[in-house]
Amino acid sequence: MSKKKNNYTPLSSIGEFGLISRIKSNFDLKNKSSILGIGDDAAVIDNKNETVVSTDMLVENIHFNLMYVPLKHLGYKSVVVNLSDIFAMNAKPEQITVSLSVSNRFTLEAVDELYSGIKIACEKYKVDLVGGDTTSSEKGLIISLTAIGSSEKNRLVYRSGAKKNDLVAVTGNLGAAYMGLQILEREKEVFKVNPQSQPNLDKYTYCIQRQLKPEARYDIFQFFKKNKITPTSMIDVSDGLSSEILHLSEQSKVGIHIYEDKIPIDNETIKICKEFKLNEITAALNGGEDYEILFTIDQSDYDLVEKSELVTIIGHVTKIENGNKLITGLEQAIDLTAQGWSKI
Amino acid sequence: MSKKKNNYTPLSSIGEFGLISRIKSNFDLKNKSSILGIGDDAAVIDNKNETVVSTDMLVENIHFNLMYVPLKHLGYKSVVVNLSDIFAMNAKPEQITVSLSVSNRFTLEAVDELYSGIKIACEKYKVDLVGGDTTSSEKGLIISLTAIGSSEKNRLVYRSGAKKNDLVAVTGNLGAAYMGLQILEREKEVFKVNPQSQPNLDKYTYCIQRQLKPEARYDIFQFFKKNKITPTSMIDVSDGLSSEILHLSEQSKVGIHIYEDKIPIDNETIKICKEFKLNEITAALNGGEDYEILFTIDQSDYDLVEKSELVTIIGHVTKIENGNKLITGLEQAIDLTAQGWSKI
Repeated sequence: MSKKKNNYTPLSSIGEFGLISRIKSNFDLKNKSSILGIGDDAAVIDNKNETVVSTDMLVENIHFNLMYVPLKHLGYKSVVVNLSDIFAMNAKPEQITVSLSVSNRFTLEAVDELYSGIKIACEKYKVDLVGGDTTSSEKGLIISLTAIGSSEKNRLVYRSGAKKNDLVAVTGNLGAAYMGLQILEREKEVFKVNPQSQPNLDKYTYCIQRQLKPEARYDIFQFFKKNKITPTSMIDVSDGLSSEILHLSEQSKVGIHIYEDKIPIDNETIKICKEFKLNEITAALNGGEDYEILFTIDQSDYDLVEKSELVTIIGHVTKIENGNKLITGLEQAIDLTAQGWSKI
Repeated sequence: MSKKKNNYTPLSSIGEFGLISRIKSNFDLKNKSSILGIGDDAAVIDNKNETVVSTDMLVENIHFNLMYVPLKHLGYKSVVVNLSDIFAMNAKPEQITVSLSVSNRFTLEAVDELYSGIKIACEKYKVDLVGGDTTSSEKGLIISLTAIGSSEKNRLVYRSGAKKNDLVAVTGNLGAAYMGLQILEREKEVFKVNPQSQPNLDKYTYCIQRQLKPEARYDIFQFFKKNKITPTSMIDVSDGLSSEILHLSEQSKVGIHIYEDKIPIDNETIKICKEFKLNEITAALNGGEDYEILFTIDQSDYDLVEKSELVTIIGHVTKIENGNKLITGLEQAIDLTAQGWSKI
């Protein structure tokens, strides 16, 4: 950045109402269901279908590190993470609210940068920013985001509907975001020792992007709609495949068996795992932040789903007594346990 | 509290999922519109009317000080503050989500205490806790709360509908919460100097309660409904009367004149103002957190509103050219300016 430090604008110079006006003027309402956005006591939404609501809180140095996360990416990711939860209900996200708590080390330009990422995500995923709150913090940056979506009642998919003999499928590939994080953490340590070092991260582009700028699977939502498929259960993969399998199992009261050699893992992820001497299956099972969609379908939907390039079928649903297992290439059955990266 | 310090339970011992289960088991869903609460990717709400959404973020040592704010009261107040925004749209709050970020100085018992206050507010105001997020923080406690309400489309009241000759009215009385805060801040300073001092706060009970345990004006919402009154504009008084008058003025493009001798102020507030050598009108105009409802009505509703004990008529709406004025007892017209306590 070319600006000198003393050209930055302290947030206090425009005040809360000034900041609200600034945000409002940057965000138009586009969805028919967004009746009233920022600027009144509350936003107004006109939704003829079921309303779906999800909320997330992201805390500096707990969920993100500004040493390697650009604010624009952070804004983008905060939105995506929440939309992913709405897609995981088989609903279409239409509105978000964004609350921000920032210490006085953040300038107006920094907040603008964050909102520019939020705006790009809003445009890409066709959601409207309709409200929020902005306040000071004693330390660091905290973002709380709520996403609101819409779905016809009979199209909603819960975690609880998986049944025996259903197939288990997942979008995209797993473990990449986690390995991207390992790369970034390693470079951070190198940088601490030698601030002049210029890392060459070209080899790691895909995984780093999965970590810094993940996408939510709008495409699978559209695929289900187009093909009139309603999964029997669904969840997004935010804490690692293993943890999400256990959620579906617990809420559906079934056992789930998945096959080691079916788990989709990108080549770059595998290479980085080798560098870190980590088993790539471990990264897929226990790494977090993939924001892929894990779901179960009735066997009658097999042909349609099997043909899709979005999805890999990785296992099947069985009786609860059979437990949750990873079946290895050598046909060993290993218990799946939750080792996800719970942030509390 | 009788428990020894080492009997407290660190939050890490039950983990995020444990905490979510604990919260879920303490909160039942009661509203017909609450289809699905905590435990899936998102909550599901079935609302045939317009959906109204408001969100607030409360940060330790910015919005509250745990030296004199009990956690239970904080939980209660966090809910009330948000519901107040929903009532200010003339809508009925039905759901909330609560996100919490806590440093490791907070124990499970502390979080339980906070949620016990949230629960009391949910029961009193008949709203359901349907979701949220819990996470660590590096420092302090941050609460982000989103309230969701319902209203028929033609019953919604915005800030923008006030018109010339409307009457301006406000519920309850003003300035009490601000003077309660002054008392608490004074006692905090005394305590710092002499931790053995036992303050006698009996004289200040009302104002302290207004500060620590405010209520949202469900009653005025019910009054409007019962009497088939739809205010022309409405806002809740969170930043001081003056600031809210300016919001209505700006968004309705009108001028508003209010009368000094009509502004409702409680006797205890007046007494405390004397102690602090502060003009009580200043406390009413610029103090915050009253959570009263300020609204404008058509003159044809005068008789109905005038009879209500909930409300005081304090002024009228005029042309924008006439500005926003406080008319004093000596018939001087003083410009209203925003000196509210913006927290950024």
